[in-house]
Amino acid sequence: MDLQSRIRSIPDYPNPGITFFDITPVLGDGASFIHLMHALTDPFRDMGITKVAGIEARGFVLASAMAYELGLGLLVLRKSGKLPGETDGEDYSLEYGASRIEVHRDTVVPGKRVLVVDDLLATGGTAAAAARLLARLGAELAGWAFMVELAFLEGRGRLDGDVFSLIRYDE
Amino acid sequence: MDLQSRIRSIPDYPNPGITFFDITPVLGDGASFIHLMHALTDPFRDMGITKVAGIEARGFVLASAMAYELGLGLLVLRKSGKLPGETDGEDYSLEYGASRIEVHRDTVVPGKRVLVVDDLLATGGTAAAAARLLARLGAELAGWAFMVELAFLEGRGRLDGDVFSLIRYDE
Repeated sequence: MDLQSRIRSIPDYPNPGITFFDITPVLGDGASFIHLMHALTDPFRDMGITKVAGIEARGFVLASAMAYELGLGLLVLRKSGKLPGETDGEDYSLEYGASRIEVHRDTVVPGKRVLVVDDLLATGGTAAAAARLLARLGAELAGWAFMVELAFLEGRGRLDGDVFSLIRYDE
Repeated sequence: MDLQSRIRSIPDYPNPGITFFDITPVLGDGASFIHLMHALTDPFRDMGITKVAGIEARGFVLASAMAYELGLGLLVLRKSGKLPGETDGEDYSLEYGASRIEVHRDTVVPGKRVLVVDDLLATGGTAAAAARLLARLGAELAGWAFMVELAFLEGRGRLDGDVFSLIRYDE
C-alpha cells in the first residue's frame, strides 16, 4: 500500500522554509491506518521490547496502537507542564524554538526495554532529549519507530539503538 | 480488573479546587492498558461506527488503539493552531479558561458514523464543542467513550448519542 502518496506536504508551515508533512489523511483512512500500524510494529515484534513510549502529541497516535498490538504498556512523553505528578524532564532546541519533554518518574521502570515512537524524525532534537531523559531514569533504549524520516537532516546519527522509519524523504 | 485503583487523584491541579485524575499509571502497565482498551471498545463493536475521533491529547492515546482494534480510521480533533491544512473549529469555555477545537475538513466525510473518545467527561464543554463541529461538517455522532466520568458535573446531559464511561465518580 502506498502510504506516502496520502501524506500531504504543506510548504512554509509552521514557519517559512519548513515543509510540514501532514499525516492526518493516512490516519483518517481505515485501511491506511491499519496498514501503517502493522508496518511500524512488525520490525519490533521479537526484540524483547517491554514498553512503548509516545512523544506528544502525534507520537501518541502511533504509539498507542503499537503498544496495543504488542500487548505492552504505554509511556507518555509530554510537553512541559502537562503532567501532574512528579516528573523529570529534558530541555532541547528545535529548528524553530526551544522546548522541554517530561515524563512521570514512576512510569519509567529501570531496566525496561523501551521503544520510542514519533511521527517524524527531523533533526532528532526531540528524540535525543527523550533518549537522555529515559536513560537517566534507567530505561534501556531498545529502538525507535518513526513514520516519516527527513533523512537529509541527519537526525538518525544522534540516536542510539535500532532506528526504523517507514517513509523517507532524501531532499 | 480494578483499573480505578490505578488512577491517581491529584488535588488542586491544575487549579485550586480541581482534582486531576491521572491515568498514566493505567496506560503504563501492559495488562491494565490492554484491559482498558478492550473495555472501552467492546460496547461499540456492533454499532456501525465508521470513524473514531480522538480529542487532543489524552483522547489520542485512547482513540488510536480503539480505532486499530475496530479496524477504522482515526480523526484527530486538535487544539487551535495545530493543524496545517484547511480546518474548521469551535470555541468553548472550560472550568478554567477558554479553548478551541479544530479538525481538518477533508478528514470528516459527511454521513460517517463517528465515535468520539476522550479520557475524561467533566462538564462536557469540550465534547459538546466537538459534537457541534462534527455535526456541522455532516458527520453523524454515533457515540461517546470516556475512560472517566465526573458524574456530579452532569456533562452527559449535554451530549446526544450513546455515552459510555468506564469509571464513574459521583462526588
